[in-house]
Amino acid sequence: MDYRKKLIVKPGAKIRLKDIDPAWHGKHETEAEAAQDLAENVAKLTHLQYLLYAEKKHALLIVVQGIDAAGKDGTCWHVITAMNPQGTTVTGFKQPTEEDLAHDFLWRVHPHVPGLGQVAVFNRSHYEDVLVVRVHNLVPESEWSKRYKEINQFEKLLARKGTTILKFFLYISAGEQLERFRQRLDDPNRQWKISESDYKERAYWNDYLKAYEAMLEQCSTEYAPWYVIPSNHKWFRNLAVSQIIAATLEELKMKLPPPTVDLAQIRKAYHAAAKDPAESKSKARG
Amino acid sequence: MDYRKKLIVKPGAKIRLKDIDPAWHGKHETEAEAAQDLAENVAKLTHLQYLLYAEKKHALLIVVQGIDAAGKDGTCWHVITAMNPQGTTVTGFKQPTEEDLAHDFLWRVHPHVPGLGQVAVFNRSHYEDVLVVRVHNLVPESEWSKRYKEINQFEKLLARKGTTILKFFLYISAGEQLERFRQRLDDPNRQWKISESDYKERAYWNDYLKAYEAMLEQCSTEYAPWYVIPSNHKWFRNLAVSQIIAATLEELKMKLPPPTVDLAQIRKAYHAAAKDPAESKSKARG
Repeated sequence: MDYRKKLIVKPGAKIRLKDIDPAWHGKHETEAEAAQDLAENVAKLTHLQYLLYAEKKHALLIVVQGIDAAGKDGTCWHVITAMNPQGTTVTGFKQPTEEDLAHDFLWRVHPHVPGLGQVAVFNRSHYEDVLVVRVHNLVPESEWSKRYKEINQFEKLLARKGTTILKFFLYISAGEQLERFRQRLDDPNRQWKISESDYKERAYWNDYLKAYEAMLEQCSTEYAPWYVIPSNHKWFRNLAVSQIIAATLEELKMKLPPPTVDLAQIRKAYHAAAKDPAESKSKARG
Repeated sequence: MDYRKKLIVKPGAKIRLKDIDPAWHGKHETEAEAAQDLAENVAKLTHLQYLLYAEKKHALLIVVQGIDAAGKDGTCWHVITAMNPQGTTVTGFKQPTEEDLAHDFLWRVHPHVPGLGQVAVFNRSHYEDVLVVRVHNLVPESEWSKRYKEINQFEKLLARKGTTILKFFLYISAGEQLERFRQRLDDPNRQWKISESDYKERAYWNDYLKAYEAMLEQCSTEYAPWYVIPSNHKWFRNLAVSQIIAATLEELKMKLPPPTVDLAQIRKAYHAAAKDPAESKSKARG
């Protein structure tokens, strides 16, 4: 099943997150039922990244956003392990440094975009500058309100160079977030990373929803669409994200480049080498 | 089984690669027999990287070197997929650019070393500057001969900051390399990346062995040891590398940091939130 149509934010359309069910899980009822589709998607991703790397005509930028505990880390891990690390990067964008803040908000992001043949995953991104920054008034509205257009222009520049851009908003319910926080509280492996801000931020839930809606409405474009991924079920989140990436890359019709050398010639050289007694000796050892 | 003792290059010791069997495969006879040990190593790596990331007192630098087709890409992929991409990087060092060459040979490497809490894998490294550079006389001996000491000093600096450094030389026989080249020739998926230099470099096999021996003898130190990994069998290569990394990290006795907040307090706040009708409503939806 192709989840793109169902989950895309149509460019220019209005969106109300409250009308979207974060527990939706498509055609499968359980994780076990989805396992085979997921494995197929992962195998496709492996192959498609190899083609992208070999062909060097396209780049892929994947942006992952979502509220705390929405599963950003897990999604990045899931996507990236399908791919050869040679040619892929994951960049996490945390609180900007003083040096970052002395520059325009896209300055710290630009060096990490993928070149042709490469895949880059952003765990958080330049969108933080219209999310947390907006919710907490870290800059005045006269500043953040201009950023939507600047983001679109920036992404257009990347697209024009051959970058396919896919943006995933991982959407969970407030109840699911609470449940995940509680699991962290009871998990000795994760207690160290609990902070007070985790639950203080919950007071801003509706403000965040508004900021997400503005981001989705203003920055879902033909060349860099947003997808809203119902993420209460982790398995469905992984299934949908991997399916959307694979289906999008398949449409690029990428091909392996032809050999750059005369294969018949080289085959002969190998046969000669294989008959060389010095070679046979080392082969016997191996 | 702990392969460290068997495979380490003892600091200060002489080494003759011809005395080492690249087809050695330890206590297991087949890949199937080794599968469970390998899975256990991978699970350990996942957990240990998590500890390293959480504790932020240590860094881990893994250097992978080896002749063409020795399995550098495969090894990097294998190691890194065991770990959360948040906090890990893989850097491949190819031919230096003009800008690289306008600087000292460690300049392009330094920005990619891991910080505390991070893991960095180098697919090729600063050692290329005493390998291919030496074999092909890209700089005079008076230059490359000074680099061994400079490398040791550089690695000492990293170690003093808290970096554990593990260096793996993947060792295959000439016969195994020939066999892998031949497999590439017959694999339509890989024909595009065959180059004439693949087999032209084979003429320098013994020069490379000499350069590898010099590197192993001069740069295996207490704080940054080299391991020679018999790599004719890919499964043994992965088993040995993952075992050595896991065993080394285990000795760091890393611990999760204590919670920074009062968990009892937060637990109460969660209970209150869970009883809030607004929360229950959104929970029901999830």
